[in-house]
Amino acid sequence: MINKFTITGGTHGNELTGVYLIKKWKLEPELLKRSNFETLFLHTNKKAIEEVRRYIDHDLNRAFNSDDLKNSDLVTYEAKLAKELNQLLGPKGYKDTNADFIVDLHTTTANMGLSIVVSNESALTWKAIAYLCQQEPSLNVYRWQGDEEDAFVDSIAPHGFAIEVGAVPQGVLRADLFLQTELLIYHLLDFFEKLNNDVVMNLSKSLDIYDHQSLVDYPRDSSGDITAMVHQDRQDKDYFLIESGEPLFLTLNGETISYEGEALYTLFINEAAYYEKGFAMCLAKKERIMIKE
Amino acid sequence: MINKFTITGGTHGNELTGVYLIKKWKLEPELLKRSNFETLFLHTNKKAIEEVRRYIDHDLNRAFNSDDLKNSDLVTYEAKLAKELNQLLGPKGYKDTNADFIVDLHTTTANMGLSIVVSNESALTWKAIAYLCQQEPSLNVYRWQGDEEDAFVDSIAPHGFAIEVGAVPQGVLRADLFLQTELLIYHLLDFFEKLNNDVVMNLSKSLDIYDHQSLVDYPRDSSGDITAMVHQDRQDKDYFLIESGEPLFLTLNGETISYEGEALYTLFINEAAYYEKGFAMCLAKKERIMIKE
Repeated sequence: MINKFTITGGTHGNELTGVYLIKKWKLEPELLKRSNFETLFLHTNKKAIEEVRRYIDHDLNRAFNSDDLKNSDLVTYEAKLAKELNQLLGPKGYKDTNADFIVDLHTTTANMGLSIVVSNESALTWKAIAYLCQQEPSLNVYRWQGDEEDAFVDSIAPHGFAIEVGAVPQGVLRADLFLQTELLIYHLLDFFEKLNNDVVMNLSKSLDIYDHQSLVDYPRDSSGDITAMVHQDRQDKDYFLIESGEPLFLTLNGETISYEGEALYTLFINEAAYYEKGFAMCLAKKERIMIKE
Repeated sequence: MINKFTITGGTHGNELTGVYLIKKWKLEPELLKRSNFETLFLHTNKKAIEEVRRYIDHDLNRAFNSDDLKNSDLVTYEAKLAKELNQLLGPKGYKDTNADFIVDLHTTTANMGLSIVVSNESALTWKAIAYLCQQEPSLNVYRWQGDEEDAFVDSIAPHGFAIEVGAVPQGVLRADLFLQTELLIYHLLDFFEKLNNDVVMNLSKSLDIYDHQSLVDYPRDSSGDITAMVHQDRQDKDYFLIESGEPLFLTLNGETISYEGEALYTLFINEAAYYEKGFAMCLAKKERIMIKE
């Protein structure tokens, strides 16, 4: 049973799909109305949205670690904002949170198509994802386990995930990806409505997902500056397998660096925001998981 | 005769192709050495490069208006920087400038492929462009006349242009576009070497270019915020003709706004940096110009 669903946008102020979907729904809130639950929608990082920047002091979407939320010494703009959002939508880890399910809207400069990033795992979250994959067969699912604890916005609620859509540059609104993301939200609303009405949904019993394995950083010099680019043969090959010996990077002086290791899938290739985080792409395994009805 | 050629990169600090080409050449300066002229290459906006931002206070590539360069009341970071660069490479409008020919390296989030933007017109500039188009048939040329006076970096010298390459997000280095831009510079060095040696180049006598006509802004609300996106059928259609009645914008509430007017070519569609400048795309006419040997 879902009572309070929350959609957040503008967690990164330069990812315009979420920013403008929330603006659209503020003008037409009836689009989100359903018979048997409430939907709240809001801009999370208003100052970053205004400045069309990812963040003011640091990444809001890594600011929801439980210890950090309790730490009164953390007084950056995003640390304070995370505590406010936690009060509004959580509190995280409590039984009766103000949001049952959070979907946080993102975009990526990588060629990720329409993707779900899930780290806040629950039977209900997986069931919702299975429903969405049935409605949108092009949807891909990435299970992220790159941090010690899930510190994403959606971790405030017991259930939820992030939508990532790309490729789209920071600061750009693409109509095609806007429409795809919007439609996915309407499917999710249908799912909650059916769920609350005990409608039988005949979901697939299993789901193929991409399971996080590791991060690959760019080659860098002693000052930390990158000395190679993603190789032109790997660029845009998100959700493609990479095998040992295949081109991975091209150094500034024109040498190809090949991938060495187990055959894995490459995701989030050449995402602008990850240069400073220290990775050029993620590696994942394809895995079949079981969905509980 | 060219004696002093200058290549500038990082005029916009988040356009990484130019930033990293200059870094590459600092490591391998012999790549730019030719027998009969000197090549200088430099990062223009170092602070913006460090912060991976377009600019600190305002756009450096609109800061070279002759009056502004003389105005000592202008003391923003980029106004001061423009004056320094003008001393180093100009002074603009003088007979004996420190740079004979400037190429400024840019990228765009629009699907512009490999493009030259020319506003600093001279017979030599057009001859160089004609040579480059012969070497790279996919190269497109856009004559920009959108400002009262050319205030671009390349306007400091008597000859020059900007290279624009895309689509690439801000803050991202794409190997394919990096290699295309690099190769174009090597062709230009060959041209100068041949020119100085009086080599007959058998250039085409005419050249088809895109001639600037007007700018089209996004529909906006009373506070200046956009209320529509570039229509999904127009997105990525740079250098394509648009005819009256064809979809131009999609409003946030899903209505299509059609183009009304003379059939023209759409350029720089949905460039991230132009949201704040107030245009969604440029309109241009295709024109055949004559090249003087």
